[in-house]
Amino acid sequence: MMAFHGRELRTTLTEDGTLTLSLEDVAVPAPGPDEIVVRVEAAPINPSDLGLLLGPADVRTMESAGTAERPVTTFRLPKAMLGGLRARVGQSLAVGNEGAGIVVAAGENAKALEGRRVGMVGGAMFADFRVLKAKEVLPLPDGATSAEGAAMFVNPLTTLGFLETMRMDGHKAIVHTAAASNLGQMLQKLCLADGVPLVNIVRSEQQAEILRKLGATHVLDSRAEDFRKKLADAVAETGATLAFDAIGGGDLGSTILQAMEQAANRNATEYSRYGSSVFKQLYVYGALDPSPSTLNRMTFGFQWSVSGWLLFNFLRRAGADANARMRQRILDELTTTFASRYTATIGLAEALQPEVLKIYERKATGEKYLIDPTRG
Amino acid sequence: MMAFHGRELRTTLTEDGTLTLSLEDVAVPAPGPDEIVVRVEAAPINPSDLGLLLGPADVRTMESAGTAERPVTTFRLPKAMLGGLRARVGQSLAVGNEGAGIVVAAGENAKALEGRRVGMVGGAMFADFRVLKAKEVLPLPDGATSAEGAAMFVNPLTTLGFLETMRMDGHKAIVHTAAASNLGQMLQKLCLADGVPLVNIVRSEQQAEILRKLGATHVLDSRAEDFRKKLADAVAETGATLAFDAIGGGDLGSTILQAMEQAANRNATEYSRYGSSVFKQLYVYGALDPSPSTLNRMTFGFQWSVSGWLLFNFLRRAGADANARMRQRILDELTTTFASRYTATIGLAEALQPEVLKIYERKATGEKYLIDPTRG
Repeated sequence: MMAFHGRELRTTLTEDGTLTLSLEDVAVPAPGPDEIVVRVEAAPINPSDLGLLLGPADVRTMESAGTAERPVTTFRLPKAMLGGLRARVGQSLAVGNEGAGIVVAAGENAKALEGRRVGMVGGAMFADFRVLKAKEVLPLPDGATSAEGAAMFVNPLTTLGFLETMRMDGHKAIVHTAAASNLGQMLQKLCLADGVPLVNIVRSEQQAEILRKLGATHVLDSRAEDFRKKLADAVAETGATLAFDAIGGGDLGSTILQAMEQAANRNATEYSRYGSSVFKQLYVYGALDPSPSTLNRMTFGFQWSVSGWLLFNFLRRAGADANARMRQRILDELTTTFASRYTATIGLAEALQPEVLKIYERKATGEKYLIDPTRG
Repeated sequence: MMAFHGRELRTTLTEDGTLTLSLEDVAVPAPGPDEIVVRVEAAPINPSDLGLLLGPADVRTMESAGTAERPVTTFRLPKAMLGGLRARVGQSLAVGNEGAGIVVAAGENAKALEGRRVGMVGGAMFADFRVLKAKEVLPLPDGATSAEGAAMFVNPLTTLGFLETMRMDGHKAIVHTAAASNLGQMLQKLCLADGVPLVNIVRSEQQAEILRKLGATHVLDSRAEDFRKKLADAVAETGATLAFDAIGGGDLGSTILQAMEQAANRNATEYSRYGSSVFKQLYVYGALDPSPSTLNRMTFGFQWSVSGWLLFNFLRRAGADANARMRQRILDELTTTFASRYTATIGLAEALQPEVLKIYERKATGEKYLIDPTRG
């Protein structure tokens, strides 16, 4: 069997507070009997990848060294920030949650996959090659490109996971923040298909327009003066008692819980000092704003919960049947509901160039980069 | 059947922001076939009663009128605060979650209770008489006084509820704040009896001493300089992943979740950008500090939940068997584990006197008042 060598994007934080991004040469191990080697052709830079790639690094401290083919990009972190990152200090960490590519080698029990294009999830995708167990990948439908299959796990499973969570927890409508994101657009398409009322919260008229074009009926601009009033109206109309929040910081989550409480109290017949009896759930699934969350508890009674929501925990909770059902739906609707759009496709070395990095690290709505390592 | 007349303490908020406490004369209705009339002899002023009695009123605005026998006490609330209280505006509300007294009349199916001393829960206990269904009261053990039975529901069921919640949710130790309170002392006694590790958080050496005298092993002063370090140590030692917080406001709850995360990461073998896989639950069951809660999410990953905890919701969740079991235990340990101590016993009219009200509204640790309407 042929031996492969390739590059792997690594992020390393050292004791002195230096975060270094680099491309390391690695020898690809021969696949075991149940394993395959995939040549990566596409891997999206998701917000969830940036947390590992850059940590809390400030791009204003960015410095560039190395060569065009082997760039080295460094950042300086204040010592005070190292506490929460102690567990990663000194480790050279591979990055990239998901991707797609072509199977270039396979163990004896995985020969059927040889030459197939597959989607995959599991980390270390920002690389030329990735070795995985055959059962960890999904063969793409005939004719699908790696770009089309590159983001078939994280966002599609997350949006499907929101709907499954809604059903498992007994809610009937959803409030979503940062709703014009790639993920948010996908969620809107899914909710329309499944008849689930969705209240979208965005931060500009331009973002609102993106969602309206998809057929969204409830789109609220959190910067509008009458936002709180309109939110309570939309929550009352849809019966939403569940919210998924990508932002985390500030008091938007608290404002959503308050709107749900106000909607519940519109039909209240008697005063309860403990608030309404309607249970309200806010899941924080992202950290677009890493600053603290503020909960004005006095505005929403005692029937509430605010929780972290993490895709991999949800998948464990959902069980095998739900997982299989969701994966099949993703394959069936890969180029429709679950299509991702990319601002640009870049090579592996380009991802370390300061002018490129500055753009994708902003996590601006609608801007999403795709890495194609075969471009260099 | 004899007809009773009595006084009832009422709290009324009017549209102009005036909160009025007064004693109203009410005719006690004749009991139905399954009902009894209880002459109230003892009713504690719990923190949970103050929320209804005073709302967010500031005692600095307190004014006193009326007579010694029929005092009228008023407070001025800023208009801005009325929003969240709209549901109670204009309603004359009776107060007092629980109490005990003697059955002075009974319907035909409840004759067995006549002359018995009973404990009761359900509101409107700050009154001379209370009409209830026979099944809503618990006859006190022979020889028990009304003072001993007056607080047999809220605090005992809450502490038993904490332990039941711990078992239902799959935790094995508890962190408790404002831990030197009457409720906190009860919880410490229960945890010692049941072999459940308890980490007590208090705010002074004096409070710590109260708990140590009961046999507490983990007592931490949140004002100490090394509090965070000691908290993480205590959490690691006990394995606590569950906390009950009486305070709510500020960042103590967040600090507890952080300590749990730190304890979990002490044994971590690899770095996860999403935090540890240990699920951490914080229940907020009180509002000693009504200011917003601050969650520093970046310090405790994605495996967490912060939720309101309300006794009456818990009792519904727990089911009939658990309820019966808890009530029996309360009766069995009424004068030991579940004994309450009172700073003073006052009459119904006294509860409206400014100098008395100023003391009990502070909710100072260890200060608890008992109302005995038979004192006038």
